[in-house]
Amino acid sequence: MIAEPAAPSWYRCHVFCCTNERPAGHPQGSCAKRGGKRLRDYMKARAKELGLGDVRINSSGCLDRCEHGPTMVIYPQGVWYHYESREDVEEILSRHLIGGEVVERLLLPKRDGEGAAAGVSVPTA
Amino acid sequence: MIAEPAAPSWYRCHVFCCTNERPAGHPQGSCAKRGGKRLRDYMKARAKELGLGDVRINSSGCLDRCEHGPTMVIYPQGVWYHYESREDVEEILSRHLIGGEVVERLLLPKRDGEGAAAGVSVPTA
Repeated sequence: MIAEPAAPSWYRCHVFCCTNERPAGHPQGSCAKRGGKRLRDYMKARAKELGLGDVRINSSGCLDRCEHGPTMVIYPQGVWYHYESREDVEEILSRHLIGGEVVERLLLPKRDGEGAAAGVSVPTA
Repeated sequence: MIAEPAAPSWYRCHVFCCTNERPAGHPQGSCAKRGGKRLRDYMKARAKELGLGDVRINSSGCLDRCEHGPTMVIYPQGVWYHYESREDVEEILSRHLIGGEVVERLLLPKRDGEGAAAGVSVPTA
């Protein structure tokens, strides 16, 4: 059975940006080396500027979807994104975190039967 | 509106353990100094031993609930715990991650109207 929170969670949107860093030359690469850390810092600063007080932008260890890095996941919606520029981050901020919609073009591939983002509803401020 | 995933998320349970470390003497303290990093390593190793392949144990930056540290949050259920011993971690593993129930005695305080853990249903393997 899947979780169905009955009411708002502690954070309306809780963002985890992978900032894992592997040694140079590692075959999987790492989100940090692809800009994950820099873009997470940018996203955190922008969320603050925009006054998104019910949103938290966290860094995290390896989310284990390295082939799509840099990656982030936003809970409780369980929506996974790839992003590689400030423009991508701005679109996630404006459309997902503020507008309450999923940014389809940045979604990571889903497993068969996986819920997000099909049918997910994103809460708005 | 709250997210209601229509089907299982990428990870059945995605655990984020705060491993933030502040300078010595900081008034808020930090989860790392209270055992968060050590216990996160223990939890990760135990989840592997137990064969919990659909669960991910991650470290994260500051979850901003320092007064209750060490803290963790488990998504997509949005359940927050305080833990300070291997016994606490074992109970979260066996009861929440395997058994699909909330460990009430370790829950963090909720805001008025917050959903988890009231009415939350935890998926089982």
